[in-house]
Amino acid sequence: MTARPANAHQARLLRLLRDSGPASRAQLGERVELSRSRLAVELDRLLATGLVAADGLAASRGGRPSHNVRLTPHLRFLGVDLGATSVDVAVTGPELEILAHRTRPVDVRDGPVAVLEQVLALAAELRTATGGAAFDGAGVGLPGPVRHPEGTPVAPPIMPGWDGFPVRESLGQELGCPVMVDNDVNLMALGERHAGVAHSVRDFICVKIGTGIGCGIVVDGRVHRGATGSAGDIGHIQVEQDGRPCPCGNRGCLEAYFGGAALAGDAEAAARAGHSPALAAMLEERGTLDAADVAAAASAGDTAALELIRLGGLRTGDVIAALVSFFNPALVVIGGGVTGLGHTLLAAIRTQVYRQSLPLATGNLPIVLGELGPVAGVIGAARLISDHLFSYPPAPH
Amino acid sequence: MTARPANAHQARLLRLLRDSGPASRAQLGERVELSRSRLAVELDRLLATGLVAADGLAASRGGRPSHNVRLTPHLRFLGVDLGATSVDVAVTGPELEILAHRTRPVDVRDGPVAVLEQVLALAAELRTATGGAAFDGAGVGLPGPVRHPEGTPVAPPIMPGWDGFPVRESLGQELGCPVMVDNDVNLMALGERHAGVAHSVRDFICVKIGTGIGCGIVVDGRVHRGATGSAGDIGHIQVEQDGRPCPCGNRGCLEAYFGGAALAGDAEAAARAGHSPALAAMLEERGTLDAADVAAAASAGDTAALELIRLGGLRTGDVIAALVSFFNPALVVIGGGVTGLGHTLLAAIRTQVYRQSLPLATGNLPIVLGELGPVAGVIGAARLISDHLFSYPPAPH
Repeated sequence: MTARPANAHQARLLRLLRDSGPASRAQLGERVELSRSRLAVELDRLLATGLVAADGLAASRGGRPSHNVRLTPHLRFLGVDLGATSVDVAVTGPELEILAHRTRPVDVRDGPVAVLEQVLALAAELRTATGGAAFDGAGVGLPGPVRHPEGTPVAPPIMPGWDGFPVRESLGQELGCPVMVDNDVNLMALGERHAGVAHSVRDFICVKIGTGIGCGIVVDGRVHRGATGSAGDIGHIQVEQDGRPCPCGNRGCLEAYFGGAALAGDAEAAARAGHSPALAAMLEERGTLDAADVAAAASAGDTAALELIRLGGLRTGDVIAALVSFFNPALVVIGGGVTGLGHTLLAAIRTQVYRQSLPLATGNLPIVLGELGPVAGVIGAARLISDHLFSYPPAPH
Repeated sequence: MTARPANAHQARLLRLLRDSGPASRAQLGERVELSRSRLAVELDRLLATGLVAADGLAASRGGRPSHNVRLTPHLRFLGVDLGATSVDVAVTGPELEILAHRTRPVDVRDGPVAVLEQVLALAAELRTATGGAAFDGAGVGLPGPVRHPEGTPVAPPIMPGWDGFPVRESLGQELGCPVMVDNDVNLMALGERHAGVAHSVRDFICVKIGTGIGCGIVVDGRVHRGATGSAGDIGHIQVEQDGRPCPCGNRGCLEAYFGGAALAGDAEAAARAGHSPALAAMLEERGTLDAADVAAAASAGDTAALELIRLGGLRTGDVIAALVSFFNPALVVIGGGVTGLGHTLLAAIRTQVYRQSLPLATGNLPIVLGELGPVAGVIGAARLISDHLFSYPPAPH
């Protein structure tokens, strides 16, 4: 795609068609507050660029199409969601609907060169699987702080070798299309806003509990990144004075008590101490435990596993309660690898938030699990790059 | 003032002249990205309405003024900042410069009718003192949650009798001008942004430590009020599990440990326990102590008073550290009645924030006292109503 919107009205129309799908001129007219004649002019220009196509039987080839319009079905966005131990890659169409999706194990500690090579191989595979068309743009999520919009990781704690690596530039050259990079939690929030549980919600927070714990913040429909791009970095908020040591060097951080890493450690300890026959059996079989094992044991009614989830949920709920008092969101979304922990986790989080935050902030506050599971990040990534392409004036990067 | 901006360009020009003072056409042209001819048209229209006046010697009466323009010097805004025990009222000119200012003791528990009567009497007094011109608009801050933009208090804990009272409508009728109402903490943030330490900062938080503790949040230059208007309500964030009982019904809230009310209680306890000769002498003299007494004792080197301030600062710092990790502001402003506690307080807050938040969020983060002291709120109130008047399309209320 070489065409880009030529003014702010065109950018608005492109985003509307992406978010709401095919629409009649009358429907578009109601939403953009343009005069009929101006709307017709801008749509004709977009049709001429090929970004927008006529849709529906009544569209005629010669004159002005009289019915629906839509984004051209040929648009292809690549979404990449890199985690600590796996990567999700997907190709989407114009409305960010997933056309093909792959998950592969990957070790982010292998460094950017090796990992991005795997990402590019997956992208090539998916390109073939979706008909071979070039990508119009790519969005990438990384499991650590990212300088935005430059797209370089900043001292990411679980990504040795990535500090300052020009991910955006490097992938852009290899893929031959515009690339935008953000942290994985912001992209999960964008994904849930585009196609998930936060659809049409303008002010919400999305807490991702994976290996670590982070938070995406959406203010007035846009991701709030903060002064240095580290907004939402809640894993190292202190929940216990002089508490457990945390790999970050402090004590008592939330991540020292919960998240995939802490949960695995606690589960192994419970198994060894003889508190859980179910976890002990799994540990003996495989020599190690992870959050999924705790989820499985809990589903089978194992008391120790349920208690670990409940205690972690209470700690997380303490932090979310403070954020709710401060930020007063309209919705709290819980996502990430541990959503397999399900309703035990959710119940513990809700208990703390409703107990500790003021009624005015919680009176109408849903606390829900994300809907999109493992594809929230790749849909959010596609949204990130399409927001970039469908903007006017064009972003500086 | 009956004139209002007729389009978004005029609204922008009015806000620019309010915020930056008199400017030449060339200066304005650089800032609003309008063509020269369009700028000239809009300025001529504003000159015709009387909202804008020619300024500077080169302005000629007959033709188009060739030099500076400014907001008409006749504009008058009323700013009201109601606290638990006192009210500040001020009249400002067009650039929100204070022309006259009064502080009076008032008991907010006397209820809205009695209190607003006193506010109106002060307003009348100030109107006379500033030449008798009618107010073009009034901004009002209340010490509790306010439904915005309706301007009614919502279950304000320290304001019995005010719940749902139509403050905006009632004062609007009495004053005969548009009125906007917000909570006092948001107005302190707006004031410090307009004329104080947060000047030109677009993302910051302003923590007000008065009788209670609250926080104003500015995102991208605008106050973030949250889904139900309670954003920034941080006084009841839990800082200690199963801690001190708080009047709100929970235990361990920040306000149970710090703020004017908690500090006064702790000071009296210290005096009675014989820990502080200075505080004991003051208590014997007047039968009661307040935050100002603790400040006075601390300035005189009283160890117990210094320790009370330090401990309160550490508790407050714990909460601010979490907010900094979450929100990643560019600046933290500390204001309110206890700023008299000065650098002991600031040092304790800084200690906790820099120790607990991640380096990326704190690497470039100033934590400073507010500059405007008792007039931050009234300047913020004037800014609130002028934002409302200088907006297009006009706000629904």
